Amino acid sequence: MENIGYYNGKTAPIAEMMIPMGDRSVYFGDGVYDATYSVNHIIFALEEHLDRFYNSCRLLDIPAPMPRDELRATLYDCVRKVDDPDQFVYWQCTRGTGIRDHAFPEGSSNLLIYCRPCKMKDMNERYRLITMEDKRFFYCNVKTLNLIPSVLASQRAKQAGCQETVFHRGDLVTECAHSNVSILKDGVFITHPLDDLVLPGISRKHLLEICREKEIPVEERDYTLEELRTADEIIVSSSGAQCMAACELDGQPVGGRDPMLLQILQAACRAKVRRETANA
Amino acid sequence: MENIGYYNGKTAPIAEMMIPMGDRSVYFGDGVYDATYSVNHIIFALEEHLDRFYNSCRLLDIPAPMPRDELRATLYDCVRKVDDPDQFVYWQCTRGTGIRDHAFPEGSSNLLIYCRPCKMKDMNERYRLITMEDKRFFYCNVKTLNLIPSVLASQRAKQAGCQETVFHRGDLVTECAHSNVSILKDGVFITHPLDDLVLPGISRKHLLEICREKEIPVEERDYTLEELRTADEIIVSSSGAQCMAACELDGQPVGGRDPMLLQILQAACRAKVRRETANA
Repeated sequence: MENIGYYNGKTAPIAEMMIPMGDRSVYFGDGVYDATYSVNHIIFALEEHLDRFYNSCRLLDIPAPMPRDELRATLYDCVRKVDDPDQFVYWQCTRGTGIRDHAFPEGSSNLLIYCRPCKMKDMNERYRLITMEDKRFFYCNVKTLNLIPSVLASQRAKQAGCQETVFHRGDLVTECAHSNVSILKDGVFITHPLDDLVLPGISRKHLLEICREKEIPVEERDYTLEELRTADEIIVSSSGAQCMAACELDGQPVGGRDPMLLQILQAACRAKVRRETANA
Repeated sequence: MENIGYYNGKTAPIAEMMIPMGDRSVYFGDGVYDATYSVNHIIFALEEHLDRFYNSCRLLDIPAPMPRDELRATLYDCVRKVDDPDQFVYWQCTRGTGIRDHAFPEGSSNLLIYCRPCKMKDMNERYRLITMEDKRFFYCNVKTLNLIPSVLASQRAKQAGCQETVFHRGDLVTECAHSNVSILKDGVFITHPLDDLVLPGISRKHLLEICREKEIPVEERDYTLEELRTADEIIVSSSGAQCMAACELDGQPVGGRDPMLLQILQAACRAKVRRETANA
């Protein structure tokens, strides 16, 4: 197939898939999701994404849609049905279907999956960025479907001819509209600590692991917009764009002062994907 | 019909209605809504709800689904098809259908409507309340579909055997999970000012209008949890429960010290609904 949509056991091409109007995603955004990439029909970092997905369910008291082994098998069933080996693999779970009522319904949750051809981003390109006050809620550690602020920030970046928006709360940098953001300064990798202001990004975690392997010092701490502006490198990371450096922030040149360390991180990211998605 | 669902021109009983998996409500909650009640097949305060609905669309740059006259007629078409004259009338507009991409899509928005039998709440009952830190975003003036914090707070109230949760940001009271909250103190009606922390509630507006008519002094200003606890009356207002007094807050007795003024407000609310929904 060219792509696949899945909903509670039914599959069809995405454009033909219908879901009930009473699914709680439709009127409350009451669900969580996770997403990663397939390379060579192998789902990259799947176990870590499943860890986070089940944790998101737990944090919002949403019943898991199915046991982990079954979900893994279901995701692979979908991935294998799509011809292109390189795919965006997305799944979400919502708090069931019913009459609109804020309090939790009885009954089971809904599982939605889709896979469509898509490649991870080449890391040679540098991002242009804008900044924006972070007006999101305090559940940013949960990968929820309540994404309007991210949608608005992404659109603002696009309209500015940029690739991402860096959120800040007052003077402190949190993360981007759909990525984490970290900086390199004097050979140190600095990134916002894990709290309810940022998503625990899988690529962020990989970068921290790579730093430890390579004995690059790490600081997980708050950092300011001024530190962002004067960083040696700004690094934007997501599952599809694992370690993107930036060249511009709000129209001013940034980064480009530690290309050696940047290349070490990017090469390690590429090697990890290659290693873990090689055909047996 | 017993109830009705509507989606982009198609209608059916709510439980049978299906919508495309690609609707942006499903994966981003990327839409706005409004809701009110039909009494005697007349939609109460419809023009004010339409004002707010079109303003919500404008605030999020979502193209209006249709001109106001057409939307009004479409809502009435739905309401008239449902046998029960007393209904909950809900409509939402999402930023179209397409492949999941944060930036805005080309094309038109989706209109979803449903009407189901439901009566406005009797105001004689008193609410029991709990409080909860307001962890929502800063777009609370827009009636969006990003409602997870409201869902969580409503569930917490239900589990505590209460009817609503009062949100506060630090020491300041904002609003409830799905209502505004105001207080009476020494004959003054005090309510949070309109900013991006509260929804501009239609019932809140009606209460302010009633106060002006009755020469009851009004203060639209921040007020604290302590002022809430020691208020003469706590008033919770929404379209379906226009002027509910509270008797308990976090397990402690509250209010009940100005039943006369409360009754004046409640009687005026009842009269307004009766007047505006009387059969011609």
